[in-house]
Amino acid sequence: MVSDLLPLGGGSLLLAWQLKDKHVLIVGGGDVASGRIESVLVADAFITIVCPSQGLHPLTKRFIDRSDRITYHDRVFAGPEDLAAVDMVLTAIDDVEKSREICSLCRELKIPVNVADIPESCDFYFGSQIRDGPLQVMISTNGRSPKLANLIRKRIEQSLPEHAGDAIEKVGELRAQLKERAPGVGGDIGKRRMRWMIDVCTSWDMEELALLDNAMMKRLLNDGWEKNTVPKLEEVGGRERRTPTIKPSGSVIVPSVIGFAIGAVSVGLMWWTRR
Amino acid sequence: MVSDLLPLGGGSLLLAWQLKDKHVLIVGGGDVASGRIESVLVADAFITIVCPSQGLHPLTKRFIDRSDRITYHDRVFAGPEDLAAVDMVLTAIDDVEKSREICSLCRELKIPVNVADIPESCDFYFGSQIRDGPLQVMISTNGRSPKLANLIRKRIEQSLPEHAGDAIEKVGELRAQLKERAPGVGGDIGKRRMRWMIDVCTSWDMEELALLDNAMMKRLLNDGWEKNTVPKLEEVGGRERRTPTIKPSGSVIVPSVIGFAIGAVSVGLMWWTRR
Repeated sequence: MVSDLLPLGGGSLLLAWQLKDKHVLIVGGGDVASGRIESVLVADAFITIVCPSQGLHPLTKRFIDRSDRITYHDRVFAGPEDLAAVDMVLTAIDDVEKSREICSLCRELKIPVNVADIPESCDFYFGSQIRDGPLQVMISTNGRSPKLANLIRKRIEQSLPEHAGDAIEKVGELRAQLKERAPGVGGDIGKRRMRWMIDVCTSWDMEELALLDNAMMKRLLNDGWEKNTVPKLEEVGGRERRTPTIKPSGSVIVPSVIGFAIGAVSVGLMWWTRR
Repeated sequence: MVSDLLPLGGGSLLLAWQLKDKHVLIVGGGDVASGRIESVLVADAFITIVCPSQGLHPLTKRFIDRSDRITYHDRVFAGPEDLAAVDMVLTAIDDVEKSREICSLCRELKIPVNVADIPESCDFYFGSQIRDGPLQVMISTNGRSPKLANLIRKRIEQSLPEHAGDAIEKVGELRAQLKERAPGVGGDIGKRRMRWMIDVCTSWDMEELALLDNAMMKRLLNDGWEKNTVPKLEEVGGRERRTPTIKPSGSVIVPSVIGFAIGAVSVGLMWWTRR
């Protein structure tokens, strides 16, 4: 309901930015920069790092040594010429003046920019992140508390289904195969595809979805999609899952024993007093 | 370890994009567009919606009626003139050709663009989202499975600490007050501020942080920051939390009763047979 939704506001627009084969300039090579490098490599970008070598964090050094997607310049930021053909700029240096200067150059050139520690010089913020294969989760406190973001991240990490990443990977493959079999953007076919994929995702649990292999996908499409139904895992040749052995936990054993003892003593006393 | 981190890749760069008072053009007004409008209003942007009135979803209509941040044009996309002074473009229309045309105009003008259902025309994707005050969580499957993203979102929602949003809000205020008291960007003071804020966030639990009011914050800064320590909730005038009453759950009652019964019957039988 809109009435419940308004007033909105006070937040950010959370996005999954696409950087595949784009060029990202990172100014600085310290601790913060090393984290940025990792995030950007996850997104398959090419990276140019500009930082005097004495300022390189060991992790940054190792990224530079081992990734063929990184070009490294042992110097400070040189000026607008460093921004040619750059799709995104991330700075993490201690020089506030220089940071602000880089930011305004980026704004002129309409290059998205993040300046560590200076919120007003950021087109976007980073958050605390989780990754499990194709699954990515970001926790943002909109700049209020990085530490609480971190604590919440740990809590979320523990709550994620164990096979979520694999399940997503397999469902993505199934979806791609379905799109090949029944192509077309939008319209009725798009809607039917979407409905069937939802049925698959809600009929099978993540552990089952994670087991999908190519042969099973083919049978799922032949016996399921073509007949507008969703077969069970076993019906498409999947191995049945092992039934988990139910071990009584401490919370069951302790009250059972106490109950047994109380029961035994009560009846014992009853008989003893009636003798 | 870099060796554990490489190869990375296959993901996106998750971001919290800042849109406060920026201008977003939304082309289309259907179901998908109405979701976009909500996300963009959360980020405090101004919105222009371009869509013939017969294509408006009821929710879109209500947003248009009730938000003073929305300008509505009852027509189709007119061309490059619609992109003047626009900071971001989101399209959600069925016309694939028109969508692609809008995308290439945006790319020429370096305006970030998302075209619903056409991944290659997107500078960024949306994910499944959770919001609790200043806390925002995004779940992205990198386009593999919106349905699984949704299921995972529900799981995460249940795992979030109950007072997380309030706790973050209060910690944000405390941090702002601390920055006023001990100003300066970066350097030693920045590090000391960060360390103390981390101490506060790890010494108090979220339920306690959520109780912070102005008077308590002042005492926390006077008695805590100034003395480089973290007082307890009660020491800064916070009411002690009610101790939760521990109710035995079904998993305790059932084994107790069964244990009692078995114990009683055993001893009963023992006596009976020995009579």
